[in-house]
This record gives sequence, structure tokens and C-alpha cells, in this order.
Amino acid sequence: MEIIDFGKVASRYKVIFFDAYGVLKNSRGILNGIDRTFDFLLDMDIDFYVVTNDASRSPNSLADAYIEQGLAVIDSSKIISSGMLATEYLRLKVKKGGVAYLGTEASAHYLQEVGLHTMSIADVDLDACQDINALVFLDDEGFDWNRDINKIVNLLRLRNIPAIVANTDRSYPVSSKEVAVAIGGIADMIEAITGRRFIKFGKPDAQMFIFAYDHSQRAQEVGKEQILMVGDTLTTDILGGNKFGIDTALVLSGNTLRGSAAEQIHSTGIIPDYICGSAVIN
Amino acid sequence: MEIIDFGKVASRYKVIFFDAYGVLKNSRGILNGIDRTFDFLLDMDIDFYVVTNDASRSPNSLADAYIEQGLAVIDSSKIISSGMLATEYLRLKVKKGGVAYLGTEASAHYLQEVGLHTMSIADVDLDACQDINALVFLDDEGFDWNRDINKIVNLLRLRNIPAIVANTDRSYPVSSKEVAVAIGGIADMIEAITGRRFIKFGKPDAQMFIFAYDHSQRAQEVGKEQILMVGDTLTTDILGGNKFGIDTALVLSGNTLRGSAAEQIHSTGIIPDYICGSAVIN
Amino acid sequence: MEIIDFGKVASRYKVIFFDAYGVLKNSRGILNGIDRTFDFLLDMDIDFYVVTNDASRSPNSLADAYIEQGLAVIDSSKIISSGMLATEYLRLKVKKGGVAYLGTEASAHYLQEVGLHTMSIADVDLDACQDINALVFLDDEGFDWNRDINKIVNLLRLRNIPAIVANTDRSYPVSSKEVAVAIGGIADMIEAITGRRFIKFGKPDAQMFIFAYDHSQRAQEVGKEQILMVGDTLTTDILGGNKFGIDTALVLSGNTLRGSAAEQIHSTGIIPDYICGSAVIN
Amino acid sequence: MEIIDFGKVASRYKVIFFDAYGVLKNSRGILNGIDRTFDFLLDMDIDFYVVTNDASRSPNSLADAYIEQGLAVIDSSKIISSGMLATEYLRLKVKKGGVAYLGTEASAHYLQEVGLHTMSIADVDLDACQDINALVFLDDEGFDWNRDINKIVNLLRLRNIPAIVANTDRSYPVSSKEVAVAIGGIADMIEAITGRRFIKFGKPDAQMFIFAYDHSQRAQEVGKEQILMVGDTLTTDILGGNKFGIDTALVLSGNTLRGSAAEQIHSTGIIPDYICGSAVIN
Repeated sequence: MEIIDFGKVASRYKVIFFDAYGVLKNSRGILNGIDRTFDFLLDMDIDFYVVTNDASRSPNSLADAYIEQGLAVIDSSKIISSGMLATEYLRLKVKKGGVAYLGTEASAHYLQEVGLHTMSIADVDLDACQDINALVFLDDEGFDWNRDINKIVNLLRLRNIPAIVANTDRSYPVSSKEVAVAIGGIADMIEAITGRRFIKFGKPDAQMFIFAYDHSQRAQEVGKEQILMVGDTLTTDILGGNKFGIDTALVLSGNTLRGSAAEQIHSTGIIPDYICGSAVIN
Repeated sequence: MEIIDFGKVASRYKVIFFDAYGVLKNSRGILNGIDRTFDFLLDMDIDFYVVTNDASRSPNSLADAYIEQGLAVIDSSKIISSGMLATEYLRLKVKKGGVAYLGTEASAHYLQEVGLHTMSIADVDLDACQDINALVFLDDEGFDWNRDINKIVNLLRLRNIPAIVANTDRSYPVSSKEVAVAIGGIADMIEAITGRRFIKFGKPDAQMFIFAYDHSQRAQEVGKEQILMVGDTLTTDILGGNKFGIDTALVLSGNTLRGSAAEQIHSTGIIPDYICGSAVIN
Repeated sequence: MEIIDFGKVASRYKVIFFDAYGVLKNSRGILNGIDRTFDFLLDMDIDFYVVTNDASRSPNSLADAYIEQGLAVIDSSKIISSGMLATEYLRLKVKKGGVAYLGTEASAHYLQEVGLHTMSIADVDLDACQDINALVFLDDEGFDWNRDINKIVNLLRLRNIPAIVANTDRSYPVSSKEVAVAIGGIADMIEAITGRRFIKFGKPDAQMFIFAYDHSQRAQEVGKEQILMVGDTLTTDILGGNKFGIDTALVLSGNTLRGSAAEQIHSTGIIPDYICGSAVIN
Repeated sequence: MEIIDFGKVASRYKVIFFDAYGVLKNSRGILNGIDRTFDFLLDMDIDFYVVTNDASRSPNSLADAYIEQGLAVIDSSKIISSGMLATEYLRLKVKKGGVAYLGTEASAHYLQEVGLHTMSIADVDLDACQDINALVFLDDEGFDWNRDINKIVNLLRLRNIPAIVANTDRSYPVSSKEVAVAIGGIADMIEAITGRRFIKFGKPDAQMFIFAYDHSQRAQEVGKEQILMVGDTLTTDILGGNKFGIDTALVLSGNTLRGSAAEQIHSTGIIPDYICGSAVIN
């Protein structure tokens, strides 16, 4: 397993897609020295996007967190979140009625943008739910799991409506030692219990990469061979990037540890084109 | 699809295993007329047991509910619950330390019987969990889902201990119109998120039927060909009974509706020996 | 369940994607009267594409079958096959070495187009397989299942290379009464046995629809709301079309029977925008 | 990870269940020195059984292979195979008609013992299959995969009959370097394609252990706490033994390698009571 410096890899591409958590930031904030990486990219005229399974906050709000920590180059135009795909789906396929959601008010941004009438699952009344035409899983916060997960199972029994999962991740880190169940994990449970097939957005699904690709093409036309996906997770970032046909670099600063990377690549057959210690350039 | 009178079927056997919910009782209490069935069984000298995926209450407490509603023949010696298998596992395999559980105090009965030190997940302190040597999923009530499901995921990251699921059902009816997520559904989600393999007890697993069989043999020695399993669910009662090698009767008073029974039998390939309208004898 | 005439539906769109089997043709050849549908589309200036999970033959060869049966409007430019996605993947991600494949010589077209050195799995020598850099599942014919399925499992143990599935269908009809196991079913088995994650192309995956969409845009620019997907299978055509954000019409001339359509829509939660008896216009 | 001498472990028990492949034998025959282990057991008056997922040959024939290699203590009374469970199922649940099977003539032993009319899938005529009342998966040899796997899928469409899997293993070693697909892997594929639920016998299923337990009780009555399961595979031998409530010892002479044992125990949460280098006593 050869570990190569990220600067060497990056300089071969015109556009770079970065996963967020485990690559640009961790539980303590943005990675120490990651600003040098973006200075390098700007210097080399390499474009970049953050491609993230996140529907908990709007791109603006996600960008603000980078800006506040001194990474002003990551503005909202650079953020591609799985929530944006849910927005596009709703815009195209849900023409009227209301949308019930699981998540905080901040996550409901993705629905309100479409102009739909939105309602937190907490406020849904099962005796008067005939106008609800879609259900969207946005965030694991903002509702009472005991009461509202049961409410959702019964809502889907009463109404045969599309259920949209705006983030397929099953868990996410909340500190250096602890993780939390993500909304994708809860959606999987409800899908199994109800027997329904949900509509899911997020890496490794190709649709996420195509959405990012289409965004990147507005700035400049580049072929897929000139794009690199950088991620810390084999089953989302690397599998998805490979399938989409772009090159992939695994970084060892997050989910995949240095000691087990070779074993994981071998057992899953998910093979990155490069392995780097981190995306920080020394 | 021939529908046959339950009395006719029952009279061919020496022992009958009944599923509880959807067979003997429903959301309104015990089935109207089911007492006649037990009069008939006593009259014909046919033994019977209730074989139920339930770890929410002790056999005594489960029996009390029948007795209170006038079905005094179902005492605790007639109840075989999946919780009893969890008890046996703990007795044999967890020799020391504490056991954390999900469920109400009533469900913790299954643990206390073994003499182990038990602790509700609500009371577990992740900073002092070194003495916890097993985790048991008993009931969907008695804990805060938001807080405690996350706590469990992290407990399993800190401690590589066996996780025991004392009821594999994913949902259960709470009224004629509504269902609730059962502890088996929650356990499946946590199993998927953590990647661990849990130890699961409940129909259709053969172990449940063998446990019931061994109980029945204490009263009288009967061969498997003299035992009938009566249930309302193809994937638990009928599949499990068939695999164990006993005859099976599907009743249409619960999960499996008259209109879709033939289609479900065809699509799953799970074939009961008999189909009866209900276990009530007219 | 309202059944609506296909002509009425079709006239609302500018581009129509048709599934092939069960929609345009069946085991006896192209559907009687389907030529009237294409006359209507040409007349109304509605563009069309055949979007098919098929990697057994080249688009040219697939088109020839329509032309031979009198449907000359379906030339190779109208065919979008899942095999074409495999070709694009190989072109982008497999730069050197050889590619082993399962399938007939006709299916190997999809590989040869890229200029790679291709080798039927039948000709692979496990003692000299160091140059094989990818494995592609194309067709269920053209190899000896007993010998070559085992060979593949061992090839993947010897070489950690990407495995590409060019058609995710698990079975396909061979006559009005019989089906055959498709290459997607065989690939799923080998994926489970080896524990590897394969790269899979075909409906319902969004990538298939995006590929078709990009093709259609070369002829004319149309928004997603002007495109209709017509298919006979909920879990591929309709689920995939919905997720991609285009409207969907289920036809009852293939996999989904008139008697069970409502039940299947209800149990899966996969909801077409329209239901038509068939794509034939009367 | 403490590695303990097998003799020390064995001496604590009255009955030992051994897995066969990877524990007593490997691709080169019985393990060098394993005869010393059995001398020790006889000396210490410890009873033993071979508990194996195997339906390819009768217990007699399986025992002969040990006897021929000088391990005469393993006669057929010491062999518990998953095929024996299939025999018991058929005896209890298939009362008339014929049984179609996948496997060699040697494997058909398990069916003939019941007195049923048996027929290799190769000889089944789909136009005259009305008398076939069960389908049994016995061995991966003895039939033509291309022709007969397709035949089975269609047989199950024509006849809604129970399908019994007499060995749930997905692969097995054929030499020190190569594996082959086992009948359990083929059965899983057909189950997924047909959507049917098959009836499966083999470790880790508790039924296998109970069958072995019942056998052992005929020689002497022992409690579960006096029985040890020895195996090389966490997901079958150890998981199944744990769930059944007996102690378990993982040996590192087969499927689980010394270098990855600790990691596998951690990631699966399947925890053996002991880890031994092998079952050979020095």
C-alpha cells in the first residue's frame, strides 16, 4: 500500500470533489493546515467542490461553518449536499399538497425552497393526513423518536406516498470517541418494517456525483478524467466515485484507519486510485 | 384455497401450539368465543401451549391477562415466550458482571430470574461501563429512543459483548388500525449500524419450537406428528412450524387477510397444512 | 386504479423512454400494433428511446431485431443499453491489461469497443492471470456455469480487481411460460460469496436514466418534466424513473399483471404517475 | 487475544462437538497429530461428535473417510450432518409423491432413507412435474448448472412446493488455494430470484446443535455447560454454539487466520470462550 502526498495527486486534476467530514473537518473543526491545501488549489487554478451526504442544513449554512473557521473560499456555491437532490426531486415530482418531514427547522430549508407546504412529523395529525403527499427524511434531530417513528410507520400505512431519504448515511461522528445514528439508519429501519421502497439520495449513488459534475461544468467544461474524488470512506466516496468513472483518492484522516486500510480494500474490492495520509498539503 | 373448520383440524392432534396475537386475542382483548375452543380441547384431552414472541412481561404476567378475561385455563405453565430463551442463554453464557437492557422494569424479569445484576440502558454511564457483560433487547418501551439508541451504539463500540434480542418481531398491532415498532425492528437497525451479529430468539427460529416441544414433553411424550402449530403469520408461525417438522394451520383472524392469503402463500412458498377462518370453534 | 389510454398520456410529453421487454416486445416478438404507437409519436414529433437492461448484444444488433420485424424507426441511435454504461466505465477506469468477461462473443462487443484486450472466462488460466485488471458480467450464455462460476470466485481471490455487472436483472422471460436466470442473478451470488462490492449498471439506478437523458439532449433540449418513462416493472422502470424525477407510466403487458398491479403498488410504495393497458395505441 | 492449549480446554468438558473441515481435516486429509487428540479424549472419557454442514454423502460414507486415514474412532454414530436434518424434515412433512434433488447419487442417500421416490433434477420433465412435492438442495455436483438451475427456477414457478437446503454453506475449500461454490450459495441465488422462502438446515442454526445434543444424550445425560463446540468459523460454529448456550473454542487451523482473528471477533461481535492454535494436542 503506497501512500502518496496529496499535493502530488491533486496537481494532476482540474476539479476536485472533497467529502466533508473526515477529509476537511473532524469533531474538533476544520483540519489543522487544510487552508494550505486550498491556497495550493487556487494557486494551481484547480476548481473544487464539497460533496457531502448532509441534509441537516442549507448549503449557505454549511458554508458559513467553513467561513467562520477561516476557510472563506468554501462559499455556498462550492457545496453540493444530498439535500439538494431531495429538493430537485420534490420540485419535479410533488406538485401539490403538503410534505411531512423528519428533521429540524433548519433542515426543512430543502423543502421550503420548492414552495411546498411543509410540516414537521411532530405536527402531523394521523386523523387528518389526507393532504400529505410526500415524506422526507432530513435529519435525526428535531423530533421525538419514540412517538414520531411510530407515527411515520402508521402514516405510511394510511397514505401510499413517496418517502424520500435525503442522506443515506447510517451513523456520523459526534466527538472523537462517539457516533450517533444518522437519519439514513432510521429510514432503513422504517423501510424494512413497512416493506416499502424509499427514494434515497447520497453517495455512493451516482446521481450525487452527476449532480456535482453538472455544477462543476457551469464554471468550466472538464472531462471526467480530469476530476478527482477525495474521501475517507470506501463504501460511499470511493465506490461512488469509481462507479461514476472519475479517479479516487482515499485519505486516512477519518473513517478508514491507516492500520486497516489495506485489509478493507482487499475484503471489499473497493479500490481507490490513490491513498494519501490526509488532504493537508505540507 | 380450502378453508376448514378448526375443530376438525384440532381433533387430529394431541398437542396444539397457539400463537397469541391474531390467534387468541386482538387489540380488543381475547377473541369472542375462543373459550369454546379451550373447552373443546379439554374435553378431547388435547394439550395446548401459547408460543409467543414476547419479552415485555413474565409468563405469569402474560397468563394473568388471559385469566382476567375469563380464560383461566391459560396459566403460566402454558406460556412459552421468546423471553424465556433469552433467560436460558444468560444463565448458561453470562456468568458474571452486569447486564444492560432495553425495556420496562416488567421486562427485566427475564434477567433478574438469573440472578444477574441488571441495569436499564437509561442508567448506563458510558464512562463507567467496564462491568457490563451483555446487552439485552426486551421491549420497545421503558427508555428514551433518541438518547438511548445512540447510547447503545456507543456502548457496543466500547464493549465487545454479546447483544441478545429477546423478540425478533419488527412491529406489533396496538389498535385495530395502528401498529408500533417492536424491539426486534430497533435491534435490526442497531445490528446494521454496528456491523455486529446479534443473538436472536423468537419464531420462526426452530429453537423456539424446540423449547416449546421440550416443555410439552414433560406433561406427556408425543411425537412431532401429533403436534399442530396454529398461527396468523406465514413468516414466523407457519415457516417455523414447518421447519421444525410439525403440522401447521394458518388462521385468517390476524396478520394474514382472507383476500390475500392465497397470493401470499404462492409468492412466499410458505405452505400451511391447513387454513382455518379462525381458531374459534362454532 | 384508473387505466388510461397510452395515446392520451404520450401526447403530453416531448420525449419517451421505453423499456424493451414487456413493453415493445414479448417472447413472440414485437407487440402486435406497436407500430401504430411509433407512427403516432413521429406524427406528433415526440422523440423516443429504448432504455434497456441488456448487455448481451450491441445496440446495432438490438436495433436489427426491431428493424427485421418491421419497426424500422428503432435504429441503433435509439437504443440505450446498460452495456453502454459498462463500456464507458471501462474506458474511463481500466487503462491497461486485460478484461475477463462472462458472456457470448456478441456481448464482448461492449468491451472491444474500448480497445481493451478481452478474454472469455472460459479461456482464463488462473495460474497466469496477473494481467487481468477487470471482470465484466455481460450475459448468462457463452460459458460453462459449473466450471466458470467457480473460476470467477477464485479469480477474485487471486486478483483484487473491479467486477462490473452490465445488467442487474436477475431473471428474464424466454417464453410465455418460462424464465431464465439472468447474469445479474449470477453476479449477486458471486458478490455474496466473495464479500466484494461490485459495480453495477442498469435500471433502477439513476445513472441509466441520466445516460439516456444526455443522449436525448443531443437531439433537442428538453426539461425532465417533458420526459416520460414507460415500463412494465415497478422495481426497475418505475422506481428508477421516479427517482430521476421524470414522469412514469406502468403498462400491464409484461411483468406486472392487471390483477395484481394495485396490490403491488400498495405494498412496495412505488407509484407510477399513470397506468396503461399497454403501449399500443388503438 | 490469549491462545490456550486445546488439551487444557478439552479437559473441562464431558462432550465435545467438532466441526470437520478446518478442525479435523483440511485439503490434504486429516490433520497431522489429530489422532493424539482422540487418544486423549478416550483416555479422559470425554465423548465427541463431528457436527458438519454436509449433505454430499451419508454419515457412513463420511465416517469411512476418517477410518481409512487411521482415525477409526470416528464411526458413523459419531457423525451429525446437516443432511440428517433434511431427512428428518422429509420424513415428517412430505408424505407422498416424489422429491427432486440437486446433488450426486451419493447425496440422494438422505432422501432414499425416507422411502420417498427421488429424482435428480437432471431427470425432471417440466411438462410432467405434477407429482413432485419437494425440492432438496444436497450437493453442488451431480447436475448441469446452466440447464438445471434454470430448470429449478421454472419448477418452482410451476409447483408451489417446499424447497429444502441441506447445507447452508456458501463455499468450501477444494485445495489449499482454491474454493468452490457450495450448494448453499446456489440455493441463496434461487431463493432471491424466485422470492420464495426456503427451509434451511446447517450451522449456525440452533436446530443443528439441538440435533447433535439429542444424539449425545443417548450415550449419557450431560448439561449444556458440559459441552464444548470447537470450530474454525465464527459465523457458523461459534455463533451457533454460543446461541445454543454451550461453550465455544475457535481454532486457527482453518477459515480464521491467526493474524485476523482478533479483528474478526471485534468487528462481528461473535466471541468464542477460548481460542486455540488447533485441536491437535502436543
